[in-house]
Amino acid sequence: MGCDMCDAGNAEDAVELLVCVKCRRGTDAPDDARRPGQALHDNLRAAGASVAVTGVECLQNCEGGCTVALRGAGRWTYVYGALHEDRDVAMLLEGAALYAATADGLIPWRARPDHFKRNCIARVPPPTLKEKADV
Amino acid sequence: MGCDMCDAGNAEDAVELLVCVKCRRGTDAPDDARRPGQALHDNLRAAGASVAVTGVECLQNCEGGCTVALRGAGRWTYVYGALHEDRDVAMLLEGAALYAATADGLIPWRARPDHFKRNCIARVPPPTLKEKADV
Repeated sequence: MGCDMCDAGNAEDAVELLVCVKCRRGTDAPDDARRPGQALHDNLRAAGASVAVTGVECLQNCEGGCTVALRGAGRWTYVYGALHEDRDVAMLLEGAALYAATADGLIPWRARPDHFKRNCIARVPPPTLKEKADV
Repeated sequence: MGCDMCDAGNAEDAVELLVCVKCRRGTDAPDDARRPGQALHDNLRAAGASVAVTGVECLQNCEGGCTVALRGAGRWTYVYGALHEDRDVAMLLEGAALYAATADGLIPWRARPDHFKRNCIARVPPPTLKEKADV
């Protein structure tokens, strides 16, 4: 049985790629336009992501978008920025699959997509980690 | 009964202020020194924070530290940077209490400490939020 709040116990299904659908990525997209963030979200879904792709409104990395977050039960949550809605879809799908293949969200450094190495905005440990973690 | 993984059902106790204890805050503190991040952690505990203060190793906002994250069951997680281990302790205690007083982690804008308004690195929605959220 899993927890309704955190999907604990449903680890395989719990990995999510959150996409800020409001991101303008520095463009001056008008309010009623399909924004770059929405396009990134739609392109990831259309490409058949192996993890759940969830649209959210504002991950508050507005000056460094587009922005996504990877999270999953028992895993570190990672926020990545400087993404492009067309050019970075394949890289994100690869990174999400690597993340999902870990138990703790820590993709081995050498296996990480270069974009992940250079554009990590922040990370947050899983709730189960109650004190210091190795980097 | 709460969930062991996410503290769901233990909302009152679940708010945490995570502090990156490895942060050098742009100083050239030697490896064996008590770093600014550790000092921030220790100062928050000594000041009697009303929420749990948890030391973690690296929230990966290394160029914009010191860095903390506020999180709690059912709440948005917020990451804040550009903190000083002495000057920002009282502000952080106030902000953490305001955060703990919310059900969803969204401190009303006008009530937010100015530092929170200007130095939010990123935020991540609670697992219970499965689609778009209002900003």
